[in-house]
Amino acid sequence: MEFLLREARSEIGPRKLKSSRLSLNQITVKGAPLDRVLGLSVEAGIESVGLWREPVNELGIKQAAKALAASGLRFSSLCRGGFFTSRTPEHRRKALEENRRAIDETAELAANSAAGSVAVLVLVVGGIPEGSRDLLAARENVSAALEELVPYSRAAGVSLAIEALHPMYLVDRAVVSTLEQALELASPFTPSEVGVVIDSFHTWWDPNLEKSIARAGREKRILSFQVCDWMHPLPADNLLGRTFPGEGLIDFSVITKAVSEAGYNGDVEVEIFNSEIWSTSSSEVIAKTIDSYKNIVEPYLA
Amino acid sequence: MEFLLREARSEIGPRKLKSSRLSLNQITVKGAPLDRVLGLSVEAGIESVGLWREPVNELGIKQAAKALAASGLRFSSLCRGGFFTSRTPEHRRKALEENRRAIDETAELAANSAAGSVAVLVLVVGGIPEGSRDLLAARENVSAALEELVPYSRAAGVSLAIEALHPMYLVDRAVVSTLEQALELASPFTPSEVGVVIDSFHTWWDPNLEKSIARAGREKRILSFQVCDWMHPLPADNLLGRTFPGEGLIDFSVITKAVSEAGYNGDVEVEIFNSEIWSTSSSEVIAKTIDSYKNIVEPYLA
Repeated sequence: MEFLLREARSEIGPRKLKSSRLSLNQITVKGAPLDRVLGLSVEAGIESVGLWREPVNELGIKQAAKALAASGLRFSSLCRGGFFTSRTPEHRRKALEENRRAIDETAELAANSAAGSVAVLVLVVGGIPEGSRDLLAARENVSAALEELVPYSRAAGVSLAIEALHPMYLVDRAVVSTLEQALELASPFTPSEVGVVIDSFHTWWDPNLEKSIARAGREKRILSFQVCDWMHPLPADNLLGRTFPGEGLIDFSVITKAVSEAGYNGDVEVEIFNSEIWSTSSSEVIAKTIDSYKNIVEPYLA
Repeated sequence: MEFLLREARSEIGPRKLKSSRLSLNQITVKGAPLDRVLGLSVEAGIESVGLWREPVNELGIKQAAKALAASGLRFSSLCRGGFFTSRTPEHRRKALEENRRAIDETAELAANSAAGSVAVLVLVVGGIPEGSRDLLAARENVSAALEELVPYSRAAGVSLAIEALHPMYLVDRAVVSTLEQALELASPFTPSEVGVVIDSFHTWWDPNLEKSIARAGREKRILSFQVCDWMHPLPADNLLGRTFPGEGLIDFSVITKAVSEAGYNGDVEVEIFNSEIWSTSSSEVIAKTIDSYKNIVEPYLA
């Protein structure tokens, strides 16, 4: 990592942040090895990272935890558990097993990160199971899966954060489409057991957004705040229609103030899916992430 | 039209409907001249049509009204007014003028259609004005535009039906994304002045759908029910991801029963945007529309 730190120093230059709540979500620099992501973040003055299971497990969870500990960075979330909407016992059993592994990984990473870290596993709950049209049953299966998982995550000291995804992802990613719905699903549990992610891209359209953010704050369920902007027009693959805050159509003053006024004082993850950004060098992406966060998001944080 | 009727007779064959609530929305057979749409509908036993302003005005409103009267069909709605979210006085003035013309056309068509017709103008309210990020202001402009338009539409005997569009169309088509939001916008007015359209494609994802449909029924504000199915995956142009009921992911038993139990007993429009369907012969499309409606939607109507 020493080499990477040196390399990053020259690449990122004078953009150092101090005492920042910015967290770099690893997917924003998709393809970069974990060591490089951590090294570049440290060098740029970023203090926190959000990680993804696939690259973490590529390195191995022990090795990843060690690298995280060595970096001195905070850990803001692991993406992602969930995908437990299926009705068939075999699918269901496998999904729950996978989620228990994700909970263990979250605990391991949180235990090996700097003070101020949280043990938060982001849940993308899953879509309508293949061959089914039963949206209502899929939603019920989410409740049932949470009930089964919570004793395990509670014992591991891990909080589950339900992410409402944009309604256009209903079929294959998430039958949870609004923050209000995520809060309803969380309501049978304590706030440290189950809370919510607030993601600007997925929720900005919601006419009840400010009301729901205020409720999430009152209920102390905001476990993560993720930001990226909405591109217009969306690309053919609508999964990749995200960009740096300030480059799309979202007014970040509205959502950021609402989250801040709701009492959230944790890390703010910049999480971008965008094939053009993914083909740009990680150091350049990190520099742009910092600029965009500082200019567009940070001014509206309390 | 006599020739078209003869042609249709042989093309559509034995699929005649009797006393049906099916209405063919003209966009489903996009490109077909109005005379042919009317002729094929009559021949197929369809009793009602929903029309679009562009093809109506291509023929001329007087001529279109005459053709509608001659067909003996009911008229279920005119698409579309709206697009009045802009802040600039010039855009606003033009948009209101255009909407007054659309109101006049609705009245003219309704006056020239069979008993049981309604004078309903569908409103797609418009997106975030070019150059702006102010979603909240755009929404306020919708309320202001309604206030200006209602005295005119009331005098013309025309009901304005606000259509909530899928949130993925927020930026360029509609800042109204849920049925609840449409009902809130309608609430300052009487139900005959301003109501709502319920469209399966745009609303099926909504976790509050059944609650909002029930409310719309209680408030007597359901002015139109439009059906088409959700294709998965969506095509690159997500505007065209619609198909015949039964060919996508929507469970039509849920939404149709909800609309029916809410007391709606008007026409049910099949309204499909799909480039493949648009390149199929109108007679074939109409035959498929009838089959799909009879098998997938009609069984759940009271």
